Amino acid sequence: MIEVNKPTLLLNKEKSFNNILKVQKKIKNSNIEMRPHFKTHQSLEIGKWFKEFGINKITVSSVSMAKYFSKDWDDITIAFPLNIHEINDIIKLQEKININILIDSFEAFLILVESKVKFNVYIKINVGYNRAGLDIDDPEINKIIDFTSHSDKINILGFLSHFGNTYLSRSNIEIESIFNSSIKKLKSLHSRYPDYLISIGDTPSSSIINKYPNFINEIRPGNFIFYDLAQNKIGSCNLDDIALRMICPVVSINSIDNTCLIYGGSVHFSKDYIVDNKRNCFGYVYHGNTWGTKSKIGFIKSLSQEHGKIQIEKNIDLKIGDLVSVIPVHSCLTIDKMREIFIESKKIKIMD
Amino acid sequence: MIEVNKPTLLLNKEKSFNNILKVQKKIKNSNIEMRPHFKTHQSLEIGKWFKEFGINKITVSSVSMAKYFSKDWDDITIAFPLNIHEINDIIKLQEKININILIDSFEAFLILVESKVKFNVYIKINVGYNRAGLDIDDPEINKIIDFTSHSDKINILGFLSHFGNTYLSRSNIEIESIFNSSIKKLKSLHSRYPDYLISIGDTPSSSIINKYPNFINEIRPGNFIFYDLAQNKIGSCNLDDIALRMICPVVSINSIDNTCLIYGGSVHFSKDYIVDNKRNCFGYVYHGNTWGTKSKIGFIKSLSQEHGKIQIEKNIDLKIGDLVSVIPVHSCLTIDKMREIFIESKKIKIMD
Repeated sequence: MIEVNKPTLLLNKEKSFNNILKVQKKIKNSNIEMRPHFKTHQSLEIGKWFKEFGINKITVSSVSMAKYFSKDWDDITIAFPLNIHEINDIIKLQEKININILIDSFEAFLILVESKVKFNVYIKINVGYNRAGLDIDDPEINKIIDFTSHSDKINILGFLSHFGNTYLSRSNIEIESIFNSSIKKLKSLHSRYPDYLISIGDTPSSSIINKYPNFINEIRPGNFIFYDLAQNKIGSCNLDDIALRMICPVVSINSIDNTCLIYGGSVHFSKDYIVDNKRNCFGYVYHGNTWGTKSKIGFIKSLSQEHGKIQIEKNIDLKIGDLVSVIPVHSCLTIDKMREIFIESKKIKIMD
Repeated sequence: MIEVNKPTLLLNKEKSFNNILKVQKKIKNSNIEMRPHFKTHQSLEIGKWFKEFGINKITVSSVSMAKYFSKDWDDITIAFPLNIHEINDIIKLQEKININILIDSFEAFLILVESKVKFNVYIKINVGYNRAGLDIDDPEINKIIDFTSHSDKINILGFLSHFGNTYLSRSNIEIESIFNSSIKKLKSLHSRYPDYLISIGDTPSSSIINKYPNFINEIRPGNFIFYDLAQNKIGSCNLDDIALRMICPVVSINSIDNTCLIYGGSVHFSKDYIVDNKRNCFGYVYHGNTWGTKSKIGFIKSLSQEHGKIQIEKNIDLKIGDLVSVIPVHSCLTIDKMREIFIESKKIKIMD
């Protein structure tokens, strides 16, 4: 095990493999493919793990990330509305590997058409999250598809949607309900355009849905490889499934208000929080360098740049220099902050 | 000017110099020294700017940061409670340059004593922020100072305090009131231990306090070099003083709810927000690549990993591919996220 003297992010490979396996099992006897989202780990080395599961297509959230992963992967969907300033980078990239891009307007579509280059394109569909995408009855969908019937440049693959509103769920029943209403909308779209693919993806529904309708072609979950406290709160996973821990040293103890300070702040964890027992919580805290989940000693109640303040809720003999193990609230952002992860004593770097 | 095709953080050197000058002017006719906190910019190159103002002592928030800055600076205070796991790194560092460290308990003090090495130490004092530090009437203060009268190893320099509660202020009157009550406590401490130094530091009071009492020896503000939206909200600065802008491309427009999506998310801005007109706000938004502050078109209402959702509040002809300029909420965290900053077309890297 690595010696910890400052905030250190540990990754449990066994838990990660189990998490991948569990989600893969749910689609095993179907025609649905998994195209995992790699924005969670941002690492070539961790990405390779998916090859052991027979996975050969991935999703990323930026052109830079597509470039980075193109070293190992030859089929990448950039699941982010086209940034027209990066069209030349995309063109360069698709000379080397298969790239699928995303648009959510006729305006963006016309910019692609004007470039006179061949592109594989998904139309982003909004089914309730309201972040990006066209509504299923938006006339722009038809306008785009009509236009492509007399264009051999733009290859419309189909429709891509992210059920991001499942992240606001607080139970499996809520996740299922959002999933079902989203699927209903996509089904109506599919009945109008049966020859086009349908790609969906989010960790909550990938974790709890056991049966998908036949017209779904692929799922694109990302966070599920590690999970985190936010996913546990939603109901996507147990605490024991969470494959990341931040180990931090205790630097100051206040026995009057039962708090302590750790070296570990917002530059390590990010500032995402969950509301737990009506209090903002930036991480669950355990005593020692442990993967245990049984004996939580408290939670991070606030974060400054380098400090974390822990509310201690157990009668415990804490000393300066003790280590604590923290389950982070949001794996993706914590990894993005830390830039390196340890599996036992092996260091894994993420993309620059 | 640099060509922007993805989220790009711009720094205005002239505004930064003016900000430094303004704070320095306030202490010009006193014996107070400025020991600026370098956690805000984390950059050797930007750090050098302070040398032009005659500054030769700095503050950092970690041992790693002290190591990084020891290349250019020979007098560094690590303003973070001693992490005993890094004692050997501190010892190595202080063989090369002058290092001051921080403790806030007799327990930490004894660990230093046991190491039998000479250390320059500040006792961290809590005057109301309640993050770290001993209260002024805590008997441990006397215990530590008493002990050092028969030890030549531990050199107690004095008392260090951070008026972090000024960051919760919403007006100059509030900042002054917190400043005055904190100063009152430190004055009583000073009257008991007149031979010890008193170091204070926070951007809000450094920005608005024009006269310090004589017993204060140094101030350690950090954020003031750039400021940000949070500091503007507190009353530390005008919008025009803010020396950072994130330039982002528009990737999706929703004219029904008057929102648009930019390429620019929590991995660029961090997740800090202010409450502005009762709404969470992750940044003020202006049209184009501009330093103007007069014609705000809206604000960032939510952030995902790579997306920012802007509520547009002006009647404006926005197109996909347009650039917007965002004033970030928290400079320190935004820089920590971005890792590189541009002054015109010159790229500045921050510490690894």
